[in-house]
Amino acid sequence: MTKSPEGEHPVKAFGWAATDTSGHLSPFNFSRRETGDEDVRFKVLYCGICHSDLHSIKMTGASLPIQWFLGEVTEVGSKVEKVKVGDKVGVGCIVGACHSCDNCVDNLENYCPKVLLTYNSIYTDGTITYGGYSDHMIANERYIIKFPENMPLDAGAPLLCAGITVYSPLKYFGLAEPGKHVGIVGLGGLGHVAVKFAKAFGAKVTVISTSPSKKNEALEHLGADLFLVSRDPDQMQAAVGTMDAIIDTVSAVHPILPLISLLKSHGKLVMVGAPEKPLELPVFSLIMGRKTVAGSGIGGMKETQEMIDFAAKHNIKADIEVISMDYVNTAMERLAKADVRYRFVIDIGNTVAATRP
Amino acid sequence: MTKSPEGEHPVKAFGWAATDTSGHLSPFNFSRRETGDEDVRFKVLYCGICHSDLHSIKMTGASLPIQWFLGEVTEVGSKVEKVKVGDKVGVGCIVGACHSCDNCVDNLENYCPKVLLTYNSIYTDGTITYGGYSDHMIANERYIIKFPENMPLDAGAPLLCAGITVYSPLKYFGLAEPGKHVGIVGLGGLGHVAVKFAKAFGAKVTVISTSPSKKNEALEHLGADLFLVSRDPDQMQAAVGTMDAIIDTVSAVHPILPLISLLKSHGKLVMVGAPEKPLELPVFSLIMGRKTVAGSGIGGMKETQEMIDFAAKHNIKADIEVISMDYVNTAMERLAKADVRYRFVIDIGNTVAATRP
Repeated sequence: MTKSPEGEHPVKAFGWAATDTSGHLSPFNFSRRETGDEDVRFKVLYCGICHSDLHSIKMTGASLPIQWFLGEVTEVGSKVEKVKVGDKVGVGCIVGACHSCDNCVDNLENYCPKVLLTYNSIYTDGTITYGGYSDHMIANERYIIKFPENMPLDAGAPLLCAGITVYSPLKYFGLAEPGKHVGIVGLGGLGHVAVKFAKAFGAKVTVISTSPSKKNEALEHLGADLFLVSRDPDQMQAAVGTMDAIIDTVSAVHPILPLISLLKSHGKLVMVGAPEKPLELPVFSLIMGRKTVAGSGIGGMKETQEMIDFAAKHNIKADIEVISMDYVNTAMERLAKADVRYRFVIDIGNTVAATRP
Repeated sequence: MTKSPEGEHPVKAFGWAATDTSGHLSPFNFSRRETGDEDVRFKVLYCGICHSDLHSIKMTGASLPIQWFLGEVTEVGSKVEKVKVGDKVGVGCIVGACHSCDNCVDNLENYCPKVLLTYNSIYTDGTITYGGYSDHMIANERYIIKFPENMPLDAGAPLLCAGITVYSPLKYFGLAEPGKHVGIVGLGGLGHVAVKFAKAFGAKVTVISTSPSKKNEALEHLGADLFLVSRDPDQMQAAVGTMDAIIDTVSAVHPILPLISLLKSHGKLVMVGAPEKPLELPVFSLIMGRKTVAGSGIGGMKETQEMIDFAAKHNIKADIEVISMDYVNTAMERLAKADVRYRFVIDIGNTVAATRP
């Protein structure tokens, strides 16, 4: 017989959850496992909201969405070496993998065929992984990111998803060096940190957006070098063949031929947003310049730690709006309208207790 | 006033040409330029027929199609160092480029924005480049490939197009080393030499084809290791996630999701055939394995020389059917039906003179 979320594990936990596809979240009692030898338990202080959370609760009625937790370690297993009680830590989108395949051996747990997501995966003990905006979290130490002293937990939280999603392809596709010209398509949660990382790597950065209204934000606030309105044929034509690579963060269906045209020969268009329907691929335009369209999805744990250390060193943070736990449903509505610059982060530590029924 | 093909240059030439979009070829008198300081003139002995020739004569009424010439040098300019009179040489698809852009400096003339094709381009002197099945040819020495002693001119001819088209991406995308598993989609002019080069590099090679009838040919004759019928879901499912890269030679519109699925994480699907219409690109499948879809088009002159030397060393030749000049129209009809294994090569040296009106 399947046990209830509240009774299946020995340690009581409290958070907010969606229990049907309405997407409405409400207070929720559940439980988490005891601290195993390799586990780290921490009190959650901040928790980010990702676009895929919104997607998840509407589509699947996920019981406990939300992917990144930041908090303070309260207990560690006997074999844990990475962190100690009191350390500031985070967990991102994944909490497990097989640890024996080529990808795991290469520290690319994110591409392991048996990767376990932070929520709605079946964990190794057979229970469902609970993300959730919750009072505490537990994870195997491999999936624990140690936060540097000078990295704020609230503005650092989104980096565990958006940050690594853009940092990893910048590194893998050879763009993490001065002198590259990198285009960033879309100025949302992913795009705004992509600009910051690309600039920190020394690239010339052009933001490509459908909205002329984002020009000042891109140039003045985020520090991009150039701004292109993708709907302006003259601007686009003038930039043809100028970019080494483009990071495309847009998850709506959109034409990629104009983006491929912006690339120099041998240039790379890297998709990190995932449109639900196939895009049109103009093969001839790839052949003529030996160009590449590639995908990239988050990053491995070693690289995620590297990313957060790099961000701390270069003072990269996400632009966030901190909210209280009981504002979450309003936040989801605003997120659906892209009405946030650029990520909501819930102040769990100070506000979740007051929402207990 | 535009001069006639016969009168615009001082050196008389004879060949066969299509003069309208019917695609019918017939004897044709024209002319070629005098031998400049950097030029190499050679008597044409063999000339291949490429699928793009067929395309060209039907679509554009190209006056003198046909891309690759093999022959014996008869005259060299005062500054020519690469070859001497009597040498066996070839010319491929291109005869000029700007020689100053990044691509030219990197010996990638094929990606120069000002690349000049062997036929139907406007040459630096303002005249149209004449390919053509013709008695002799002239080209700047940069575009002259020196044929090794042991490379037959007839079976070596198609390598200047099909050979370099598959050799270049095998090298560029890191597949020219033992232990890689490379898929080859389509067993035609490009595919059959792709199998040979990939095997010579030490790869495990799987041919992927819609035609079960090609299995014996692929395994027994060409030496592929495995054969997959792309229309057989069970065979395809069993091969999911097994290949480092796939060279896709098919120029018809076809689904690429099944091919992407065959790739390991970080695998590469390289398109060398150019479907006229866009293909469907399933972005999510790229993101999940950090996979790549790329294009590649022929190769630079330095690499083409390297390819032909490599082919000579490893005894790689194209499988050809040698025909006489007056058979060319029949050959074009058969080519349109893919009724050739795998390339027609015209014995120009022995048969063109007899066709003079």
